[in-house]
Amino acid sequence: MVMVSDSPRVVIIGAGFGGLWAARTLAGSSADVTLLDRNNYHTFHALLYQVAAAELEPSDISHPIRSILRKMPNVNFTMAEVESIDFASREVKTGNGSIPYDYLVWATGSRSRFYGVEGAAEHAFQLKSLDDAIALRNHILCCLEEAARETSPERRQQLLTFAIVGGGPTGVELSGALAELIRGPIRKDYPSIDTKKIKVMLLEAADTVLSGMPPRLQGYTVKQLKKMGIDVQLNTVVSEITGSGLRLQDGSTIPCETVVWVSGVCGDAMAESCGLPIAADGRVHTLPTLQVPDYQEVYIVGDLAYVEKDGRPLPYVAPVAMQAGTAAAQNIKRQIAGQEPLPFRYRDKGSMATIGRKSAVVRIRKYEFTGYIAWVLWLAIHVFNLIGFRNRILVMINWAWDYAWHERAVRLILPSETCSVKKSYHI
Amino acid sequence: MVMVSDSPRVVIIGAGFGGLWAARTLAGSSADVTLLDRNNYHTFHALLYQVAAAELEPSDISHPIRSILRKMPNVNFTMAEVESIDFASREVKTGNGSIPYDYLVWATGSRSRFYGVEGAAEHAFQLKSLDDAIALRNHILCCLEEAARETSPERRQQLLTFAIVGGGPTGVELSGALAELIRGPIRKDYPSIDTKKIKVMLLEAADTVLSGMPPRLQGYTVKQLKKMGIDVQLNTVVSEITGSGLRLQDGSTIPCETVVWVSGVCGDAMAESCGLPIAADGRVHTLPTLQVPDYQEVYIVGDLAYVEKDGRPLPYVAPVAMQAGTAAAQNIKRQIAGQEPLPFRYRDKGSMATIGRKSAVVRIRKYEFTGYIAWVLWLAIHVFNLIGFRNRILVMINWAWDYAWHERAVRLILPSETCSVKKSYHI
Repeated sequence: MVMVSDSPRVVIIGAGFGGLWAARTLAGSSADVTLLDRNNYHTFHALLYQVAAAELEPSDISHPIRSILRKMPNVNFTMAEVESIDFASREVKTGNGSIPYDYLVWATGSRSRFYGVEGAAEHAFQLKSLDDAIALRNHILCCLEEAARETSPERRQQLLTFAIVGGGPTGVELSGALAELIRGPIRKDYPSIDTKKIKVMLLEAADTVLSGMPPRLQGYTVKQLKKMGIDVQLNTVVSEITGSGLRLQDGSTIPCETVVWVSGVCGDAMAESCGLPIAADGRVHTLPTLQVPDYQEVYIVGDLAYVEKDGRPLPYVAPVAMQAGTAAAQNIKRQIAGQEPLPFRYRDKGSMATIGRKSAVVRIRKYEFTGYIAWVLWLAIHVFNLIGFRNRILVMINWAWDYAWHERAVRLILPSETCSVKKSYHI
Repeated sequence: MVMVSDSPRVVIIGAGFGGLWAARTLAGSSADVTLLDRNNYHTFHALLYQVAAAELEPSDISHPIRSILRKMPNVNFTMAEVESIDFASREVKTGNGSIPYDYLVWATGSRSRFYGVEGAAEHAFQLKSLDDAIALRNHILCCLEEAARETSPERRQQLLTFAIVGGGPTGVELSGALAELIRGPIRKDYPSIDTKKIKVMLLEAADTVLSGMPPRLQGYTVKQLKKMGIDVQLNTVVSEITGSGLRLQDGSTIPCETVVWVSGVCGDAMAESCGLPIAADGRVHTLPTLQVPDYQEVYIVGDLAYVEKDGRPLPYVAPVAMQAGTAAAQNIKRQIAGQEPLPFRYRDKGSMATIGRKSAVVRIRKYEFTGYIAWVLWLAIHVFNLIGFRNRILVMINWAWDYAWHERAVRLILPSETCSVKKSYHI
């Protein structure tokens, strides 16, 4: 046990893709690694929209961190909320005390960016965590229940209007999934609701959806979404969100009970006050090695890191986080061995978005795919990336079932007050 | 559509086994049926303890009511909280307005009975709903997380002591499931916790567990539980529950962070103020036909009905609720057809409780089974009774996995604040 205190202590904050890939890379090394997260599970963020659209269960896209770490004896997990980082004394301060480090990997990701739109933070739903996805699902199903017994046509229409702000991959995927929820299970389960009255709107400020994609795939996506009955409004800027709807820049208003904000992200809030160099989008500027300029033992990876490639910042996507997590951990191993850290090189393998059943857009390097073949590629890559073999089986069954029978059985309005845990801790 | 107003209106309150079986029996009849429930899902209560012990997911034991009703066009669902019933004007008052009825089936079940034990209602966890089960699971996992980083041995022991009050089937099954959680996944996932220090206590006021069972099965159960490391304490009366532990009648105290109260149930709270004849356990006395004495159009079924057989009240179990729900609905059909309602005859098919992996006790009529064969019987009957084919497949996979690999992947501490639904409704 005396050996332990001689091992270099590595603390990783955040068990998303960046943090987990760093932990994997350090597994079996001489380092004594502590992984911190506020939740006891890792979330597969790319499928949060499927939980929101009642297609998958929370447990399908989440996996307990401790069981991921079972085969990594030098990696320990502590569930804690990080309050601040003291770079001078090399300590992470949590709600349960301080944790000293020799090397730090900071990977707490991103949060929604509201661009100063009034009411967005207060009234819009987001899709940045499992909590967000469950809250949105509960809300959507509650709107339908209320609409089923509502007699006023105006109020009913308000309950049946779902506005999604932001035409990035999440906005496209969520609006597609909602459209399928409506024409599938909702049509069957709510005989008193005329599903033609249910309106899914996708509002995008730019003149196209999926801004990073090739133009042909953008055009295909808009065409497909419209075919599915989604009201796609491009060049449409939202200026205010209230509890009863939203206002556009041209002054018009849309009464709706549900606004989902998936329009942009920025770095974690804690970064702003940490004294490190911050980019315009709230991310932390790093050296090419992913180190922070003044602290050679601090690495930033994932959504929180502002790294440029060919003069453009790397996108907020899982592959960047995975590759950066691995690179940072390898650099820490080099430093421990007395070697110089190496610059991070991101290998872009492509990008993709699903539009609905049997339809997706996929770019792999220079190759572009649309339609059914793109959907099969999308499905295979996503299911393969789910952590845990059982999760993959269960998700496959859910999807196969849905695909074959066009019906979903996963539409519970989950308990809305499970706060008793916290309560009982403060007795 | 003119025909509808001529149909007799049947309102069923509660979509548990009693209410659902009544709805099934009335499906396809001339009645216009409305099923009310505060949740949008039916819960398979017999397996709530498996959700609490992180063995199953909430969606494994719940099924959306609307999809159960798909094939019953004359049965409509309304999600609503019932506030009161006006028997004179034949109206059910809900948070969303009044619903008139010609016939009523009241099936809102039971709640925990605390026998005046101080602090029980405030500090003990219960297992009467999906919310309860999720809250208990979150709490248990949070206790383990806190114990993993706790340095004080006393506080650590308090966090690792789990007291279950009540040796009925739920108490036996929950303590067995917790013991298996501890010696399986917890041992693997919490290397810093000495699992021998984790204490599961089963406290029972009487001199045996499973009071309704044959003595041989009771003795077998106690022996098995002790073999699994559970501290079974018979003739032990709990006198007070606090936020930090419990006090026994002999004055001794047990420091523990978790107390689960599964010691008794009584009728729904609304029954007390409704003016109907109430039994000592808070249930409503019914006529042998399940009608209420003064109102021939009102039926009580399930846990809420006090019905005697051979001088003893019928137990609070699902088969009674199913048979009574069916009988009440048949009597309503008879009344609609101008016939006299018939007395309800309960056919006791047996009772069972599982103790753990490969071990259960089952009584079928006069026959008694223990051990592995009883466990297989228990498993088959429970999985068969889960509503929805997909639920059965998923639950089978979960169990098979657990059985084969002795590991569970379903241990998320679910979002503790999903209240945003309600919040957004009050904006």
